[in-house]
Amino acid sequence: MDNSSQIMEHILTKNIPSPSPITYSFLAPNARGVADATAILQRHQGAYVNQNDTSKGGDGKPMMELAVFAAATESFSQKNLNCDIATSLERFKDVIQGAKQAGIRARAYISVVLGCPFEGYNVNPHKVAEIATSLLEMGADEISLGDTTGMGTALRTQELLRCMTAAGIQNEDIAMHFHDTYGQALVNTAVSLERGIRTFDSSVGGLGGCPYSPGATGNVSTENMVYFLESLGMNTGIDLDAMADIGQWITGELEKPNDSVVGKAVLGARKAAANTST
Amino acid sequence: MDNSSQIMEHILTKNIPSPSPITYSFLAPNARGVADATAILQRHQGAYVNQNDTSKGGDGKPMMELAVFAAATESFSQKNLNCDIATSLERFKDVIQGAKQAGIRARAYISVVLGCPFEGYNVNPHKVAEIATSLLEMGADEISLGDTTGMGTALRTQELLRCMTAAGIQNEDIAMHFHDTYGQALVNTAVSLERGIRTFDSSVGGLGGCPYSPGATGNVSTENMVYFLESLGMNTGIDLDAMADIGQWITGELEKPNDSVVGKAVLGARKAAANTST
Repeated sequence: MDNSSQIMEHILTKNIPSPSPITYSFLAPNARGVADATAILQRHQGAYVNQNDTSKGGDGKPMMELAVFAAATESFSQKNLNCDIATSLERFKDVIQGAKQAGIRARAYISVVLGCPFEGYNVNPHKVAEIATSLLEMGADEISLGDTTGMGTALRTQELLRCMTAAGIQNEDIAMHFHDTYGQALVNTAVSLERGIRTFDSSVGGLGGCPYSPGATGNVSTENMVYFLESLGMNTGIDLDAMADIGQWITGELEKPNDSVVGKAVLGARKAAANTST
Repeated sequence: MDNSSQIMEHILTKNIPSPSPITYSFLAPNARGVADATAILQRHQGAYVNQNDTSKGGDGKPMMELAVFAAATESFSQKNLNCDIATSLERFKDVIQGAKQAGIRARAYISVVLGCPFEGYNVNPHKVAEIATSLLEMGADEISLGDTTGMGTALRTQELLRCMTAAGIQNEDIAMHFHDTYGQALVNTAVSLERGIRTFDSSVGGLGGCPYSPGATGNVSTENMVYFLESLGMNTGIDLDAMADIGQWITGELEKPNDSVVGKAVLGARKAAANTST
Protein backbone atom coordinates (compact mmCIF):
# COMPACT_ATOMS: atom_id res chain seq x y z
CA MET A 1 0.00 0.00 0.00
CA ASP A 2 1.20 3.51 -0.75
CA ASN A 3 2.27 5.69 2.15
CA SER A 4 0.55 8.91 3.21
CA SER A 5 2.83 11.12 1.13
CA GLN A 6 2.19 9.15 -2.07
CA ILE A 7 -1.58 9.16 -1.50
CA MET A 8 -1.57 12.91 -0.78
CA GLU A 9 0.47 13.60 -3.92
CA HIS A 10 -1.94 11.46 -5.96
CA ILE A 11 -4.97 13.37 -4.67
CA LEU A 12 -3.32 16.72 -5.35
CA THR A 13 -2.28 15.90 -8.91
CA LYS A 14 -5.06 13.68 -10.26
CA ASN A 15 -7.93 16.11 -9.93
CA ILE A 16 -10.38 13.46 -8.71
CA PRO A 17 -13.95 14.45 -9.58
CA SER A 18 -16.19 14.77 -6.55
CA PRO A 19 -19.52 16.56 -5.96
CA SER A 20 -18.22 17.90 -2.64
CA PRO A 21 -14.61 18.49 -1.51
CA ILE A 22 -12.78 15.37 -0.30
CA THR A 23 -10.73 15.86 2.85
CA TYR A 24 -7.54 13.86 3.00
CA SER A 25 -6.29 13.16 6.48
CA PHE A 26 -2.50 13.02 6.64
CA LEU A 27 -1.16 11.22 9.70
CA ALA A 28 1.55 13.40 11.22
CA PRO A 29 2.83 11.90 14.47
CA ASN A 30 5.52 14.54 14.94
CA ALA A 31 7.13 17.72 13.56
CA ARG A 32 8.75 15.77 10.73
CA GLY A 33 5.31 14.69 9.52
CA VAL A 34 4.29 18.33 9.31
CA ALA A 35 7.43 19.14 7.31
CA ASP A 36 6.69 16.28 4.87
CA ALA A 37 3.10 17.39 4.40
CA THR A 38 3.88 21.08 3.95
CA ALA A 39 6.66 20.28 1.47
CA ILE A 40 4.19 18.33 -0.70
CA LEU A 41 1.57 21.06 -0.41
CA GLN A 42 4.10 23.72 -1.39
CA ARG A 43 4.90 21.78 -4.55
CA HIS A 44 1.20 21.86 -5.44
CA GLN A 45 0.18 25.36 -4.40
CA GLY A 46 -3.37 26.12 -5.44
CA ALA A 47 -4.36 22.47 -5.88
CA TYR A 48 -6.08 22.33 -2.51
CA VAL A 49 -8.12 24.50 -0.20
CA ASN A 50 -5.91 26.40 2.23
CA GLN A 51 -7.68 26.90 5.53
CA ASN A 52 -6.29 30.44 5.82
CA ASP A 53 -7.56 31.36 2.38
CA THR A 54 -10.47 33.65 3.11
CA SER A 55 -11.70 33.58 -0.50
CA LYS A 56 -12.74 29.91 0.12
CA GLY A 57 -12.81 29.22 -3.60
CA GLY A 58 -12.26 25.48 -3.64
CA ASP A 59 -14.44 23.95 -6.34
CA GLY A 60 -13.14 20.51 -7.15
CA LYS A 61 -10.12 21.03 -4.94
CA PRO A 62 -9.49 18.63 -2.04
CA MET A 63 -9.16 19.72 1.55
CA MET A 64 -6.16 18.60 3.57
CA GLU A 65 -5.86 17.99 7.25
CA LEU A 66 -3.13 16.75 9.53
CA ALA A 67 -4.09 14.07 12.03
CA VAL A 68 -2.58 13.22 15.39
CA PHE A 69 -3.51 10.22 17.53
CA ALA A 70 -3.48 10.59 21.29
CA ALA A 71 -4.65 7.85 23.66
CA ALA A 72 -7.03 7.95 26.59
CA THR A 73 -5.04 5.56 28.77
CA GLU A 74 -1.39 5.49 29.79
CA SER A 75 -1.04 1.79 28.85
CA PHE A 76 -2.32 2.35 25.32
CA SER A 77 -0.16 5.45 24.93
CA GLN A 78 2.93 3.52 26.01
CA LYS A 79 2.21 0.53 23.74
CA ASN A 80 1.13 2.58 20.74
CA LEU A 81 3.25 5.73 20.96
CA ASN A 82 6.10 4.58 23.24
CA CYS A 83 5.58 7.50 25.57
CA ASP A 84 3.21 8.70 28.26
CA ILE A 85 0.20 10.87 27.48
CA ALA A 86 1.85 14.13 28.64
CA THR A 87 4.86 13.58 26.37
CA SER A 88 2.62 12.72 23.40
CA LEU A 89 0.67 15.94 23.91
CA GLU A 90 3.93 17.93 23.87
CA ARG A 91 4.78 16.41 20.48
CA PHE A 92 1.29 16.99 19.10
CA LYS A 93 1.55 20.66 20.07
CA ASP A 94 4.31 21.10 17.47
CA VAL A 95 2.28 19.24 14.86
CA ILE A 96 -0.92 21.19 15.46
CA GLN A 97 0.82 24.55 15.56
CA GLY A 98 2.80 23.67 12.43
CA ALA A 99 -0.43 22.73 10.67
CA LYS A 100 -2.09 26.00 11.64
CA GLN A 101 0.87 28.01 10.39
CA ALA A 102 0.69 26.21 7.05
CA GLY A 103 -3.06 26.84 6.80
CA ILE A 104 -3.90 23.17 7.19
CA ARG A 105 -6.76 21.88 9.33
CA ALA A 106 -5.66 19.79 12.33
CA ARG A 107 -7.71 16.88 13.58
CA ALA A 108 -6.86 15.18 16.86
CA TYR A 109 -7.98 11.62 17.55
CA ILE A 110 -8.16 10.23 21.04
CA SER A 111 -8.05 6.43 20.99
CA VAL A 112 -9.63 3.89 23.38
CA VAL A 113 -11.99 6.45 24.94
CA LEU A 114 -14.58 3.80 25.88
CA GLY A 115 -12.43 0.75 26.50
CA CYS A 116 -8.77 -0.19 26.36
CA PRO A 117 -7.25 -3.56 25.48
CA PHE A 118 -4.98 -3.20 28.51
CA GLU A 119 -7.11 -1.38 31.06
CA GLY A 120 -10.52 -2.75 30.04
CA TYR A 121 -13.63 -0.68 30.62
CA ASN A 122 -11.69 1.33 33.16
CA VAL A 123 -11.19 4.49 31.08
CA ASN A 124 -11.74 7.76 32.92
CA PRO A 125 -14.08 10.04 30.94
CA HIS A 126 -12.78 13.08 32.85
CA LYS A 127 -9.28 12.24 31.64
CA VAL A 128 -10.59 12.07 28.06
CA ALA A 129 -12.18 15.51 28.46
CA GLU A 130 -8.89 16.84 29.88
CA ILE A 131 -6.88 15.52 26.91
CA ALA A 132 -9.47 16.90 24.48
CA THR A 133 -9.28 20.31 26.16
CA SER A 134 -5.48 20.34 25.86
CA LEU A 135 -5.66 19.46 22.16
CA LEU A 136 -8.27 22.12 21.46
CA GLU A 137 -6.19 24.70 23.32
CA MET A 138 -3.22 23.81 21.10
CA GLY A 139 -5.42 24.70 18.12
CA ALA A 140 -6.94 21.38 17.01
CA ASP A 141 -9.98 22.04 14.81
CA GLU A 142 -11.79 18.89 15.80
CA ILE A 143 -11.48 16.06 18.32
CA SER A 144 -12.44 12.58 17.15
CA LEU A 145 -13.30 10.39 20.12
CA GLY A 146 -12.31 6.87 19.12
CA ASP A 147 -13.99 3.79 20.54
CA THR A 148 -11.07 1.80 19.13
CA THR A 149 -12.04 -1.47 20.81
CA GLY A 150 -15.81 -1.17 20.24
CA MET A 151 -16.33 -1.63 23.97
CA GLY A 152 -18.49 1.50 24.19
CA THR A 153 -22.02 1.06 25.50
CA ALA A 154 -24.99 3.40 25.41
CA LEU A 155 -24.67 4.45 29.05
CA ARG A 156 -20.92 4.94 28.96
CA THR A 157 -21.12 6.91 25.69
CA GLN A 158 -23.69 9.15 27.35
CA GLU A 159 -21.46 9.60 30.40
CA LEU A 160 -18.41 10.43 28.26
CA LEU A 161 -20.30 13.11 26.34
CA ARG A 162 -21.70 14.50 29.57
CA CYS A 163 -18.11 14.91 30.82
CA MET A 164 -17.12 16.63 27.58
CA THR A 165 -19.94 19.14 27.98
CA ALA A 166 -19.11 19.65 31.65
CA ALA A 167 -15.52 20.46 30.61
CA GLY A 168 -16.85 23.23 28.37
CA ILE A 169 -16.20 21.46 25.06
CA GLN A 170 -18.71 22.26 22.34
CA ASN A 171 -20.50 19.54 20.38
CA GLU A 172 -19.34 21.17 17.13
CA ASP A 173 -15.73 20.39 18.08
CA ILE A 174 -16.44 16.69 18.61
CA ALA A 175 -16.65 13.80 16.16
CA MET A 176 -17.50 10.28 17.29
CA HIS A 177 -15.51 7.38 15.90
CA PHE A 178 -17.21 4.06 16.64
CA HIS A 179 -16.11 0.53 15.94
CA ASP A 180 -18.79 -2.13 15.55
CA THR A 181 -16.84 -4.89 17.31
CA TYR A 182 -19.71 -5.62 19.70
CA GLY A 183 -22.49 -4.39 17.41
CA GLN A 184 -23.07 -1.24 19.46
CA ALA A 185 -21.92 1.40 16.95
CA LEU A 186 -25.38 2.54 15.83
CA VAL A 187 -26.81 2.42 19.35
CA ASN A 188 -23.93 4.63 20.49
CA THR A 189 -24.49 6.87 17.46
CA ALA A 190 -28.13 7.28 18.53
CA VAL A 191 -27.02 8.31 22.01
CA SER A 192 -24.52 10.78 20.52
CA LEU A 193 -27.15 12.26 18.20
CA GLU A 194 -29.42 12.77 21.18
CA ARG A 195 -26.65 14.73 22.86
CA GLY A 196 -26.22 16.92 19.78
CA ILE A 197 -23.19 15.41 18.06
CA ARG A 198 -23.40 15.63 14.27
CA THR A 199 -20.03 14.37 13.00
CA PHE A 200 -19.37 10.63 12.78
CA ASP A 201 -16.44 8.71 11.36
CA SER A 202 -17.09 5.54 9.39
CA SER A 203 -15.38 3.30 6.89
CA VAL A 204 -16.76 1.91 3.64
CA GLY A 205 -17.31 -1.85 3.85
CA GLY A 206 -16.40 -1.67 7.55
CA LEU A 207 -12.72 -1.77 6.54
CA GLY A 208 -10.12 -1.29 9.21
CA GLY A 209 -10.16 -2.75 12.65
CA CYS A 210 -8.03 -2.92 15.70
CA PRO A 211 -4.88 -5.02 15.91
CA TYR A 212 -5.62 -5.53 19.60
CA SER A 213 -8.91 -7.29 18.90
CA PRO A 214 -8.21 -10.43 16.84
CA GLY A 215 -11.22 -11.77 14.94
CA ALA A 216 -13.10 -8.54 15.58
CA THR A 217 -14.80 -6.44 12.96
CA GLY A 218 -13.60 -2.93 12.31
CA ASN A 219 -14.96 0.57 12.01
CA VAL A 220 -18.69 0.94 11.68
CA SER A 221 -19.41 0.78 7.95
CA THR A 222 -20.37 3.92 6.07
CA GLU A 223 -23.28 2.03 4.49
CA ASN A 224 -24.77 1.16 7.92
CA MET A 225 -24.22 4.70 9.18
CA VAL A 226 -25.82 6.35 6.14
CA TYR A 227 -28.80 3.98 6.22
CA PHE A 228 -29.33 4.70 9.91
CA LEU A 229 -29.02 8.48 9.68
CA GLU A 230 -31.28 8.66 6.63
CA SER A 231 -33.84 6.43 8.42
CA LEU A 232 -33.98 9.11 11.11
CA GLY A 233 -34.84 11.69 8.46
CA MET A 234 -31.35 13.18 8.27
CA ASN A 235 -29.74 14.12 5.01
CA THR A 236 -26.21 12.73 4.69
CA GLY A 237 -25.72 13.81 1.08
CA ILE A 238 -24.48 10.29 0.33
CA ASP A 239 -25.95 7.98 -2.32
CA LEU A 240 -26.38 4.69 -0.42
CA ASP A 241 -26.61 2.60 -3.59
CA ALA A 242 -23.35 4.00 -4.93
CA MET A 243 -21.72 3.56 -1.50
CA ALA A 244 -22.78 -0.11 -1.45
CA ASP A 245 -21.10 -0.56 -4.84
CA ILE A 246 -17.91 1.06 -3.60
CA GLY A 247 -17.91 -1.17 -0.52
CA GLN A 248 -18.30 -4.29 -2.62
CA TRP A 249 -15.60 -3.16 -5.03
CA ILE A 250 -12.96 -2.10 -2.52
CA THR A 251 -13.37 -5.08 -0.20
CA GLY A 252 -12.98 -7.26 -3.29
CA GLU A 253 -9.81 -5.42 -4.35
CA LEU A 254 -8.38 -5.83 -0.86
CA GLU A 255 -9.56 -9.46 -0.66
CA LYS A 256 -11.37 -8.75 2.59
CA PRO A 257 -14.92 -9.70 3.50
CA ASN A 258 -17.56 -7.01 2.97
CA ASP A 259 -18.41 -6.36 6.62
CA SER A 260 -21.37 -4.07 5.96
CA VAL A 261 -24.71 -5.81 6.49
CA VAL A 262 -26.44 -2.84 4.86
CA GLY A 263 -24.12 -2.97 1.85
CA LYS A 264 -24.82 -6.68 1.41
CA ALA A 265 -28.58 -6.23 1.90
CA VAL A 266 -28.73 -3.37 -0.60
CA LEU A 267 -26.86 -5.41 -3.20
CA GLY A 268 -28.99 -8.50 -2.44
CA ALA A 269 -32.23 -6.55 -2.81
CA ARG A 270 -31.04 -5.09 -6.12
CA LYS A 271 -30.19 -8.56 -7.40
CA ALA A 272 -33.58 -9.90 -6.33
CA ALA A 273 -35.35 -7.01 -8.06
CA ALA A 274 -33.36 -7.65 -11.26
CA ASN A 275 -34.31 -11.35 -11.18
CA THR A 276 -37.98 -10.48 -10.72
CA SER A 277 -38.10 -7.98 -13.57
CA THR A 278 -36.37 -10.26 -16.11
CA MET B 1 -33.30 -31.66 9.57
CA ASP B 2 -35.88 -33.30 11.83
CA ASN B 3 -39.44 -32.05 11.67
CA SER B 4 -41.29 -30.36 14.52
CA SER B 5 -42.84 -33.60 15.81
CA GLN B 6 -39.47 -35.37 16.01
CA ILE B 7 -37.85 -32.43 17.79
CA MET B 8 -40.76 -32.18 20.25
CA GLU B 9 -40.59 -35.91 20.98
CA HIS B 10 -36.82 -35.63 21.52
CA ILE B 11 -37.22 -32.80 24.01
CA LEU B 12 -39.97 -34.66 25.90
CA THR B 13 -38.05 -37.92 26.19
CA LYS B 14 -34.42 -36.90 26.58
CA ASN B 15 -34.74 -34.91 29.77
CA ILE B 16 -32.34 -32.19 28.62
CA PRO B 17 -30.70 -30.52 31.62
CA SER B 18 -31.39 -26.80 31.79
CA PRO B 19 -31.18 -24.27 34.65
CA SER B 20 -34.52 -22.77 33.60
CA PRO B 21 -37.40 -24.38 31.65
CA ILE B 22 -36.90 -24.46 27.88
CA THR B 23 -39.96 -23.56 25.84
CA TYR B 24 -40.33 -25.44 22.60
CA SER B 25 -42.36 -23.65 19.98
CA PHE B 26 -44.31 -26.08 17.79
CA LEU B 27 -45.41 -24.58 14.48
CA ALA B 28 -49.10 -25.45 14.02
CA PRO B 29 -50.47 -23.78 10.88
CA ASN B 30 -53.88 -25.44 11.20
CA ALA B 31 -56.10 -27.76 13.26
CA ARG B 32 -54.12 -30.80 12.12
CA GLY B 33 -50.98 -29.32 13.65
CA VAL B 34 -52.78 -29.04 16.97
CA ALA B 35 -53.88 -32.68 16.73
CA ASP B 36 -50.27 -33.78 16.01
CA ALA B 37 -48.93 -31.81 18.94
CA THR B 38 -51.55 -32.93 21.44
CA ALA B 39 -51.12 -36.57 20.40
CA ILE B 40 -47.41 -36.38 21.17
CA LEU B 41 -48.03 -34.61 24.46
CA GLN B 42 -50.61 -37.23 25.46
CA ARG B 43 -48.01 -39.94 24.92
CA HIS B 44 -45.68 -38.12 27.31
CA GLN B 45 -48.07 -36.94 30.01
CA GLY B 46 -46.20 -35.37 32.88
CA ALA B 47 -43.00 -34.76 30.90
CA TYR B 48 -43.81 -31.12 30.34
CA VAL B 49 -45.45 -28.20 32.09
CA ASN B 50 -49.17 -28.02 31.31
CA GLN B 51 -50.36 -24.44 31.24
CA ASN B 52 -53.60 -25.41 33.01
CA ASP B 53 -51.70 -27.14 35.78
CA THR B 54 -52.12 -24.82 38.75
CA SER B 55 -49.51 -26.65 40.82
CA LYS B 56 -46.86 -25.30 38.37
CA GLY B 57 -44.38 -27.94 39.47
CA GLY B 58 -42.18 -28.10 36.44
CA ASP B 59 -38.58 -28.45 37.57
CA GLY B 60 -36.49 -29.67 34.68
CA LYS B 61 -39.58 -30.13 32.54
CA PRO B 62 -39.84 -28.20 29.24
CA MET B 63 -42.65 -25.85 28.38
CA MET B 64 -44.51 -26.30 25.12
CA GLU B 65 -46.23 -23.74 22.99
CA LEU B 66 -48.03 -23.79 19.68
CA ALA B 67 -47.07 -21.11 17.19
CA VAL B 68 -49.09 -19.59 14.37
CA PHE B 69 -47.73 -17.17 11.75
CA ALA B 70 -50.00 -14.43 10.47
CA ALA B 71 -48.82 -11.70 8.09
CA ALA B 72 -49.25 -7.94 8.23
CA THR B 73 -49.81 -7.49 4.50
CA GLU B 74 -52.19 -9.18 2.07
CA SER B 75 -49.39 -9.85 -0.45
CA PHE B 76 -47.21 -11.64 2.09
CA SER B 77 -50.21 -13.60 3.40
CA GLN B 78 -51.07 -14.75 -0.13
CA LYS B 79 -47.49 -15.72 -1.02
CA ASN B 80 -46.70 -17.36 2.32
CA LEU B 81 -50.03 -18.85 3.42
CA ASN B 82 -51.93 -18.99 0.12
CA CYS B 83 -54.88 -17.13 1.56
CA ASP B 84 -55.89 -13.64 2.61
CA ILE B 85 -55.38 -12.34 6.14
CA ALA B 86 -59.04 -12.84 7.18
CA THR B 87 -59.01 -16.49 6.11
CA SER B 88 -55.69 -17.11 7.90
CA LEU B 89 -57.12 -15.66 11.11
CA GLU B 90 -60.12 -18.03 10.87
CA ARG B 91 -57.71 -20.99 10.68
CA PHE B 92 -55.58 -19.71 13.54
CA LYS B 93 -58.68 -19.43 15.71
CA ASP B 94 -59.01 -23.23 15.64
CA VAL B 95 -55.33 -23.67 16.42
CA ILE B 96 -55.31 -21.23 19.32
CA GLN B 97 -58.51 -22.57 20.84
CA GLY B 98 -57.29 -26.14 20.41
CA ALA B 99 -54.04 -25.22 22.15
CA LYS B 100 -55.88 -23.61 25.06
CA GLN B 101 -58.11 -26.68 25.49
CA ALA B 102 -55.01 -28.89 25.62
CA GLY B 103 -53.39 -26.61 28.19
CA ILE B 104 -50.69 -25.46 25.78
CA ARG B 105 -49.49 -21.89 25.49
CA ALA B 106 -50.26 -20.26 22.12
CA ARG B 107 -47.93 -17.75 20.55
CA ALA B 108 -48.97 -15.77 17.48
CA TYR B 109 -46.38 -14.25 15.18
CA ILE B 110 -47.21 -11.45 12.80
CA SER B 111 -44.70 -11.28 9.96
CA VAL B 112 -43.47 -8.29 7.95
CA VAL B 113 -44.79 -5.73 10.46
CA LEU B 114 -42.18 -3.13 9.48
CA GLY B 115 -41.58 -3.86 5.83
CA CYS B 116 -42.76 -6.36 3.24
CA PRO B 117 -40.81 -7.80 0.31
CA PHE B 118 -43.84 -7.09 -1.90
CA GLU B 119 -45.31 -3.92 -0.45
CA GLY B 120 -42.10 -2.28 0.75
CA TYR B 121 -42.19 0.08 3.72
CA ASN B 122 -45.90 0.50 3.13
CA VAL B 123 -47.17 -1.59 6.05
CA ASN B 124 -50.07 -0.10 7.99
CA PRO B 125 -49.33 -0.15 11.75
CA HIS B 126 -53.06 0.16 12.51
CA LYS B 127 -53.67 -3.03 10.51
CA VAL B 128 -50.94 -4.78 12.57
CA ALA B 129 -52.66 -3.68 15.79
CA GLU B 130 -55.98 -4.91 14.42
CA ILE B 131 -54.57 -8.37 13.60
CA ALA B 132 -52.86 -8.52 17.00
CA THR B 133 -56.13 -7.67 18.73
CA SER B 134 -57.96 -10.44 16.85
CA LEU B 135 -55.29 -12.98 17.81
CA LEU B 136 -55.35 -11.93 21.47
CA GLU B 137 -59.13 -12.14 21.51
CA MET B 138 -58.89 -15.71 20.18
CA GLY B 139 -56.78 -16.51 23.23
CA ALA B 140 -53.17 -16.09 22.04
CA ASP B 141 -50.89 -15.70 25.06
CA GLU B 142 -48.36 -13.52 23.29
CA ILE B 143 -47.97 -11.67 20.01
CA SER B 144 -44.52 -11.63 18.42
CA LEU B 145 -44.18 -8.70 16.04
CA GLY B 146 -41.81 -9.86 13.31
CA ASP B 147 -39.63 -7.46 11.37
CA THR B 148 -39.04 -10.30 8.92
CA THR B 149 -37.26 -8.18 6.34
CA GLY B 150 -35.21 -6.09 8.79
CA MET B 151 -36.63 -2.95 7.19
CA GLY B 152 -37.74 -1.57 10.57
CA THR B 153 -36.32 1.79 11.58
CA ALA B 154 -36.31 3.57 14.93
CA LEU B 155 -39.12 5.96 14.04
CA ARG B 156 -41.35 3.33 12.45
CA THR B 157 -40.81 0.92 15.36
CA GLN B 158 -41.88 3.70 17.69
CA GLU B 159 -44.96 4.42 15.57
CA LEU B 160 -45.95 0.74 15.45
CA LEU B 161 -45.74 0.39 19.22
CA ARG B 162 -47.68 3.62 19.66
CA CYS B 163 -50.47 2.10 17.53
CA MET B 164 -50.41 -1.08 19.62
CA THR B 165 -50.85 0.92 22.81
CA ALA B 166 -53.58 3.03 21.23
CA ALA B 167 -55.42 -0.19 20.33
CA GLY B 168 -55.41 -1.16 24.01
CA ILE B 169 -52.76 -3.89 23.72
CA GLN B 170 -50.56 -4.28 26.77
CA ASN B 171 -46.77 -4.32 26.54
CA GLU B 172 -46.72 -7.63 28.46
CA ASP B 173 -48.56 -9.29 25.57
CA ILE B 174 -45.99 -8.17 22.99
CA ALA B 175 -42.64 -9.62 21.97
CA MET B 176 -40.45 -7.96 19.36
CA HIS B 177 -38.77 -10.11 16.74
CA PHE B 178 -36.07 -8.19 14.90
CA HIS B 179 -33.90 -9.18 12.00
CA ASP B 180 -30.54 -7.49 11.62
CA THR B 181 -30.64 -7.30 7.83
CA TYR B 182 -29.93 -3.56 7.83
CA GLY B 183 -28.11 -3.47 11.17
CA GLN B 184 -31.03 -1.80 12.94
CA ALA B 185 -32.05 -4.62 15.32
CA LEU B 186 -30.44 -3.19 18.46
CA VAL B 187 -31.49 0.37 17.68
CA ASN B 188 -35.07 -0.88 17.31
CA THR B 189 -34.66 -2.90 20.50
CA ALA B 190 -33.62 0.30 22.31
CA VAL B 191 -36.75 2.05 21.04
CA SER B 192 -38.90 -0.90 22.16
CA LEU B 193 -37.28 -0.96 25.60
CA GLU B 194 -38.05 2.74 25.97
CA ARG B 195 -41.70 1.97 25.24
CA GLY B 196 -41.75 -0.75 27.91
CA ILE B 197 -41.37 -3.94 25.87
CA ARG B 198 -39.38 -6.60 27.72
CA THR B 199 -39.60 -9.71 25.50
CA PHE B 200 -37.30 -10.06 22.49
CA ASP B 201 -36.76 -12.93 20.09
CA SER B 202 -33.26 -13.72 18.91
CA SER B 203 -31.31 -16.54 17.38
CA VAL B 204 -27.94 -17.93 18.42
CA GLY B 205 -25.24 -17.13 15.86
CA GLY B 206 -27.81 -15.04 13.98
CA LEU B 207 -29.09 -18.23 12.36
CA GLY B 208 -32.17 -18.04 10.20
CA GLY B 209 -32.99 -15.34 7.75
CA CYS B 210 -35.60 -14.50 5.22
CA PRO B 211 -35.90 -16.33 1.89
CA TYR B 212 -37.15 -13.07 0.39
CA SER B 213 -33.90 -11.25 1.14
CA PRO B 214 -31.07 -13.04 -0.69
CA GLY B 215 -27.62 -12.32 0.70
CA ALA B 216 -29.14 -10.83 3.81
CA THR B 217 -28.29 -11.76 7.38
CA GLY B 218 -30.93 -13.30 9.59
CA ASN B 219 -32.42 -12.86 13.01
CA VAL B 220 -30.58 -10.64 15.42
CA SER B 221 -28.12 -12.89 17.22
CA THR B 222 -28.71 -13.85 20.84
CA GLU B 223 -25.11 -12.95 21.64
CA ASN B 224 -25.59 -9.34 20.38
CA MET B 225 -28.92 -9.04 22.18
CA VAL B 226 -27.57 -10.33 25.50
CA TYR B 227 -24.49 -8.10 25.30
CA PHE B 228 -26.68 -5.07 24.60
CA LEU B 229 -29.25 -5.73 27.33
CA GLU B 230 -26.56 -6.47 29.92
CA SER B 231 -24.71 -3.29 28.90
CA LEU B 232 -27.88 -1.39 29.85
CA GLY B 233 -27.75 -2.96 33.30
CA MET B 234 -30.44 -5.54 32.62
CA ASN B 235 -30.17 -9.11 33.80
CA THR B 236 -30.88 -11.60 31.03
CA GLY B 237 -29.92 -14.68 33.05
CA ILE B 238 -27.79 -15.80 30.09
CA ASP B 239 -24.08 -16.60 30.27
CA LEU B 240 -22.66 -14.68 27.29
CA ASP B 241 -19.45 -16.71 27.17
CA ALA B 242 -21.37 -19.98 27.01
CA MET B 243 -23.74 -18.53 24.41
CA ALA B 244 -20.76 -17.50 22.24
CA ASP B 245 -19.50 -21.10 22.41
CA ILE B 246 -22.91 -22.44 21.40
CA GLY B 247 -23.06 -20.00 18.47
CA GLN B 248 -19.65 -21.07 17.25
CA TRP B 249 -20.51 -24.75 17.63
CA ILE B 250 -23.93 -24.74 15.99
CA THR B 251 -22.95 -22.54 13.05
CA GLY B 252 -20.03 -24.92 12.51
CA GLU B 253 -22.35 -27.97 12.60
CA LEU B 254 -24.66 -26.31 10.09
CA GLU B 255 -21.73 -25.11 7.97
CA LYS B 256 -22.99 -21.55 8.11
CA PRO B 257 -21.00 -18.42 8.94
CA ASN B 258 -21.17 -17.24 12.55
CA ASP B 259 -23.12 -14.03 11.97
CA SER B 260 -22.78 -12.70 15.51
CA VAL B 261 -20.18 -9.94 15.78
CA VAL B 262 -20.41 -10.20 19.58
CA GLY B 263 -19.90 -13.97 19.48
CA LYS B 264 -16.81 -13.55 17.31
CA ALA B 265 -15.45 -10.70 19.43
CA VAL B 266 -15.95 -12.65 22.67
CA LEU B 267 -14.15 -15.68 21.24
CA GLY B 268 -11.41 -13.47 19.77
CA ALA B 269 -10.84 -11.70 23.08
CA ARG B 270 -10.67 -15.04 24.89
CA LYS B 271 -8.08 -16.32 22.42
CA ALA B 272 -6.02 -13.14 22.78
CA ALA B 273 -6.13 -13.45 26.58
CA ALA B 274 -5.01 -17.09 26.37
CA ASN B 275 -2.09 -16.13 24.11
CA THR B 276 -1.01 -13.40 26.54
CA SER B 277 -1.12 -15.62 29.60
CA THR B 278 0.85 -18.50 28.04
